[in-house]
Amino acid sequence: MSAADIDTLSRLAVHTMTTKPWDLETAAEKYGAAGIPAITVWRQWLEGRTLAETKQILDDQGLAVAAHCRGGFFPSTEPSGRQSAIDDNLRCIDEAAAIGAPMVVLVCGAVPEQSLPESRKQIAEGIAACLEHAGTCGVKLAIEPLHPMYADQRSAVNTLGQANALCDTIQSEWVGIAADVYHLWWDDRLEAEIKRAGSRILGFHLCDWLSPTHDLLLDRGLMGEGCIKIREIRGWIEATGFTGYHEVEIFSSRHWERDQDTFLEEIKQAYLSVC
Amino acid sequence: MSAADIDTLSRLAVHTMTTKPWDLETAAEKYGAAGIPAITVWRQWLEGRTLAETKQILDDQGLAVAAHCRGGFFPSTEPSGRQSAIDDNLRCIDEAAAIGAPMVVLVCGAVPEQSLPESRKQIAEGIAACLEHAGTCGVKLAIEPLHPMYADQRSAVNTLGQANALCDTIQSEWVGIAADVYHLWWDDRLEAEIKRAGSRILGFHLCDWLSPTHDLLLDRGLMGEGCIKIREIRGWIEATGFTGYHEVEIFSSRHWERDQDTFLEEIKQAYLSVC
Repeated sequence: MSAADIDTLSRLAVHTMTTKPWDLETAAEKYGAAGIPAITVWRQWLEGRTLAETKQILDDQGLAVAAHCRGGFFPSTEPSGRQSAIDDNLRCIDEAAAIGAPMVVLVCGAVPEQSLPESRKQIAEGIAACLEHAGTCGVKLAIEPLHPMYADQRSAVNTLGQANALCDTIQSEWVGIAADVYHLWWDDRLEAEIKRAGSRILGFHLCDWLSPTHDLLLDRGLMGEGCIKIREIRGWIEATGFTGYHEVEIFSSRHWERDQDTFLEEIKQAYLSVC
Repeated sequence: MSAADIDTLSRLAVHTMTTKPWDLETAAEKYGAAGIPAITVWRQWLEGRTLAETKQILDDQGLAVAAHCRGGFFPSTEPSGRQSAIDDNLRCIDEAAAIGAPMVVLVCGAVPEQSLPESRKQIAEGIAACLEHAGTCGVKLAIEPLHPMYADQRSAVNTLGQANALCDTIQSEWVGIAADVYHLWWDDRLEAEIKRAGSRILGFHLCDWLSPTHDLLLDRGLMGEGCIKIREIRGWIEATGFTGYHEVEIFSSRHWERDQDTFLEEIKQAYLSVC
């Protein structure tokens, strides 16, 4: 399944983390002026003002909120650590509701000191403990499978297959999946697991895998700079009926050092030409 | 399945790359003096002398050869590139036979400019083209699935499941698998795929995943320094009937900067205490 060309920005969203040097006011103003209709807000960008003030900043620019980033990090070797993670996720759901985000993206967490099966069990328990509040607030929880190179510290959910299995276990309309090409592109089971996920796909994240990659965290590429067959994956995603935003999420110390206006313009052009 | 304690060095092998500062003569002498019974020779350590001379150096220390490292890198966007890769693998098989290595480890290759399915097809074709020579020389080909973070440039075979599928396709007694805990530990299907692999497991490689990891290539840990449940994985491997060497393969600029005699002693102790 190959996807149709993208000829408008109507489904483009940008993560505040993508233009990290910009504060929320600047990011909102710049995205709005660039004709980008939606923003994904990272929690750090909420600091220093009320949630209502944050919402006003976004509303003033006519920006929809694609998602709130990020909850998760449920595993801990201590019960108190697991409880405080749940408490923090409940607050994150509140924040999402307050700024009009339809979902919280979950980076599920992992702890190097304990086994992956134990972390996965704690993730399922943590999500289960947040479901009622998510439903009350009308905010979905999007499990983001992370690349296997993050299995030690960031997430014990490392394939779309595992995210699907977790959704099978949890069985809730308030839980779905955020699929990021960076984390998933290498997997020979990807097309089949996207089909299996179907309407569980709540979010779709874009960037690229640089070759070579110099840093495990902060060396992602702009779409087209790397080797991911983004359009093919988008075709599989859209074949499920997905009509949500295409969220550009790029962690890159290289791009953050550049002029962010130029970078934002390149993001728009790359989105239209290679995605 | 948990593995029994290791109480002798009788199945320990060390890769020449693990003690990279040492040339072959030094490595052979040091391993021999340390009571390590086997060595895996990387091709760079063959340079500057005949294969017979290399074999004599190993024989003089009573070292068995666990494997020859490394063949593979079959994919190329050009047919001439694919042919020269095959030619190089045939030479690698000759080298293995000459130094008494029962197998060549295959890092199968990948090319960022082409799709992973295309690279996988070329890998299958490349291996197929080497089978007759492998059989003639009595040298097995061990497909090493590489961590997904190497899918762009080093290998399009990134899970044990994919390696098993490749073996299913090739169907030859001369092809099997080298299982490295570093590449495979994160996979929730690992135990099942080891069982499926069964007697295909030709090699078993040890090191550890550091948390955090600072470099994609050269920041592996000594066993026990990281988060891999090595003993559990060894139990699964040995439940297949595997009786081969436990090969220590650590790429670490940090350890290479240290005194290599001390490091070798630490390898022995770590092998006996945490593997």
